[in-house]
Amino acid sequence: MGKNVVVIGGGPAGTTAAISARRYYPNASIKLIRQEEKALIPCGIPYVVGTLGSLEKNLIPNTVFSKNNIELIVDEVTSINKEAKTVSTITHSTIGYDKLVLATGSSPLIPPLQGLDLDNVFVVKKEIKYLQKFLDALDKAKDVVVIGGGFIGLEFADECKKKGIENVTVIELLSRCLLLACDEEICKRVEQKLKERDINLLTGKKAKSILGTKKVEYVQLENGEKIKADLVILGIGVIPSVELADKAGLKIDKRAGIEVDGFMRTSDENIFACGDCAKKTCYLSGMPVAIRLASVGTTEARIVGANLFSTRKKVECAIGIFSTCFGDLAIGSAGVTENRAKELNIDVLTSEIIAPDKHPGNIPGAKELGVKLIFEKDTGLLIGGQVYGGGSVGELINFIGALIQHKMRVDEIATFQMGTHPMLTASPIVYQIANAAEIASTRR
Amino acid sequence: MGKNVVVIGGGPAGTTAAISARRYYPNASIKLIRQEEKALIPCGIPYVVGTLGSLEKNLIPNTVFSKNNIELIVDEVTSINKEAKTVSTITHSTIGYDKLVLATGSSPLIPPLQGLDLDNVFVVKKEIKYLQKFLDALDKAKDVVVIGGGFIGLEFADECKKKGIENVTVIELLSRCLLLACDEEICKRVEQKLKERDINLLTGKKAKSILGTKKVEYVQLENGEKIKADLVILGIGVIPSVELADKAGLKIDKRAGIEVDGFMRTSDENIFACGDCAKKTCYLSGMPVAIRLASVGTTEARIVGANLFSTRKKVECAIGIFSTCFGDLAIGSAGVTENRAKELNIDVLTSEIIAPDKHPGNIPGAKELGVKLIFEKDTGLLIGGQVYGGGSVGELINFIGALIQHKMRVDEIATFQMGTHPMLTASPIVYQIANAAEIASTRR
Repeated sequence: MGKNVVVIGGGPAGTTAAISARRYYPNASIKLIRQEEKALIPCGIPYVVGTLGSLEKNLIPNTVFSKNNIELIVDEVTSINKEAKTVSTITHSTIGYDKLVLATGSSPLIPPLQGLDLDNVFVVKKEIKYLQKFLDALDKAKDVVVIGGGFIGLEFADECKKKGIENVTVIELLSRCLLLACDEEICKRVEQKLKERDINLLTGKKAKSILGTKKVEYVQLENGEKIKADLVILGIGVIPSVELADKAGLKIDKRAGIEVDGFMRTSDENIFACGDCAKKTCYLSGMPVAIRLASVGTTEARIVGANLFSTRKKVECAIGIFSTCFGDLAIGSAGVTENRAKELNIDVLTSEIIAPDKHPGNIPGAKELGVKLIFEKDTGLLIGGQVYGGGSVGELINFIGALIQHKMRVDEIATFQMGTHPMLTASPIVYQIANAAEIASTRR
Repeated sequence: MGKNVVVIGGGPAGTTAAISARRYYPNASIKLIRQEEKALIPCGIPYVVGTLGSLEKNLIPNTVFSKNNIELIVDEVTSINKEAKTVSTITHSTIGYDKLVLATGSSPLIPPLQGLDLDNVFVVKKEIKYLQKFLDALDKAKDVVVIGGGFIGLEFADECKKKGIENVTVIELLSRCLLLACDEEICKRVEQKLKERDINLLTGKKAKSILGTKKVEYVQLENGEKIKADLVILGIGVIPSVELADKAGLKIDKRAGIEVDGFMRTSDENIFACGDCAKKTCYLSGMPVAIRLASVGTTEARIVGANLFSTRKKVECAIGIFSTCFGDLAIGSAGVTENRAKELNIDVLTSEIIAPDKHPGNIPGAKELGVKLIFEKDTGLLIGGQVYGGGSVGELINFIGALIQHKMRVDEIATFQMGTHPMLTASPIVYQIANAAEIASTRR
């Protein structure tokens, strides 16, 4: 059998699938087809606004392809012929494959609002031209309204402030920002920080229409209130890009993504899917879950890369490990929230410890670090964790993710081994994970 | 049965054992006997020199005892009567116990050097009076020689520089500093950083004698070389404090510590031991191991606290998770080094990835972050890991420690789930742990 691999899509999942394929199959011919001359790092997009300052600084370097002997083809695939095992592109070329990888990503969810076609209304497309237009408009903006108070929306709002935009407002439908990813007390901390950074938060409010003549002038809420706006960013989520797969007759779920088995195979055994376009299952409930993160996508991509010509790896259901920061407050969340567990009718045991992230607590640079752990009451299994503090949060939430993934119980975590150091972690006496688990385990 | 608990020792292990005992046994009477009016945080001691500036800033707060309803007794235990279940103290009081916890710690290892009794020669005792004398002498010192290039020695040397001491020299017997905790390439990076910070490193050199009339003037090496010194710090390790246990007739191993079973019980079923005074076993070789870390000690203490009146928890052998930093370079090590694995005749597979610790790599504040993973070749089990980079290293090495402790294999780690964020972690495409594992797994 030949070893021709074609990957469609050059985001994190597609790129990683190609690299992994190269590692597992050194002799394969690997082509990656993407529409963009230059591909953006998706999670870096908000940071282009204030921190990075330009789109050119937020690219996946094309050298990864040459280094890994991957042929990069800039083109758009228009159709897949499963029987002939070929893909056709907009430039009328036909490219054959033995194994095809769909990493077609996602596109912004467009809410049913009036006035979307007004000038200066933007969604978060991963396209350089579009985003350059957005950045140019932002240069002149004074009153920015962000619709959607999830990760992306808040990151944009914070970056707009960093850029020096005077008046930044976030409109969030739920009672708190970030409420799908974090429990109320963490959301409150984030909101507090955003307010300190002079961002206006309108939570529990629904945007109804975008008003203006040619250009946006106001965002009107359902309650009639009008918010002044000369630029609007819509950040309310994404939907999987499944058109190609659908047209090719693969099994899809329009909302959840391309159907894949436990090995990331689609309904055609020679076609795999990974990343935002692929359907994901919640590790706890077994139900479809909208965790569209580059980290999950690249994990799936590594499974695809391994499985292409030989079944090697099975997928662990998505835990979902988020992290972000606003000013000097970093937060992370892994697994399910307490709220979500309740929706799933799971009795939980929670425990939260706040202590300095260095020790002694008065050491220069020490900040408050809080850890909340969520256990299933019956089994003692760790099912979720949330963290807030400084720069150590990103890897600390990964540590907690590892404990969840490994199905660790509260009593085990209470005596888990860790390392500590005055400049780098909390003290071994108050180390948050161990103490939160110990307290929870003595409450069972 | 009564529930009188007596803990001897007020370091991290003793303090944690008392706190855990309180959580598991809310009705117990808990006394903690320690010699010091004020107890120092051991791992913070080097940082008193430059970063903290005073011993008073490096104390375990006595409020932990009142908060947890633990009676703090400042006294010195002189003997234990196992049969009567009492301890006697230097103030002639006799205190009864139902369960006794030995957390007597360790004391500095004194090398067989001439001139140890000269003025301005110091070891790292955990005693305020002694260390105050040391700090006072350090205020006037210009030529400091540190004997011992392990964690403690290097931390002292770096802090002496932070304090502004002109001439700081480290003498290390082995060919590299930190060689027992890290592999050569990481040691080299640390040495490079220390040299940048203007610290003189004499590796592969043995100190023979300390010369001077009343006060130290030189440290003489075995090769005859004389190093100018007006203050010497000996930081070559510690030995477990087992005198009390020995006198009481408990089984001890003078070098390795008080013998304990898998539940941290000593040879007397009513006496437990934890922390530096207790014998530890290497998770990989099953042999005694000299990992005397507060983090290991507090983990043992939590096991002791749980097991006092009901057998609840078994000890996992010590993995040993170290971290520290010198200037802006932080390093961490978990499990065994490649060197140590070779000494144990274990065939290994290693892989190392260096990439920015934020993404894109040009984002402000991004630093190089390297991860080396060490797998057992036959089984693919992760047996060690080392990390170097910035502030995320402390929790990243804990994440790696969790993977080792959970007996994860190279193929599992390659598709392990993690979270990533531009400001907090490497990019999901290059995430070091996943990539190092993937590369290693395709090399088997």
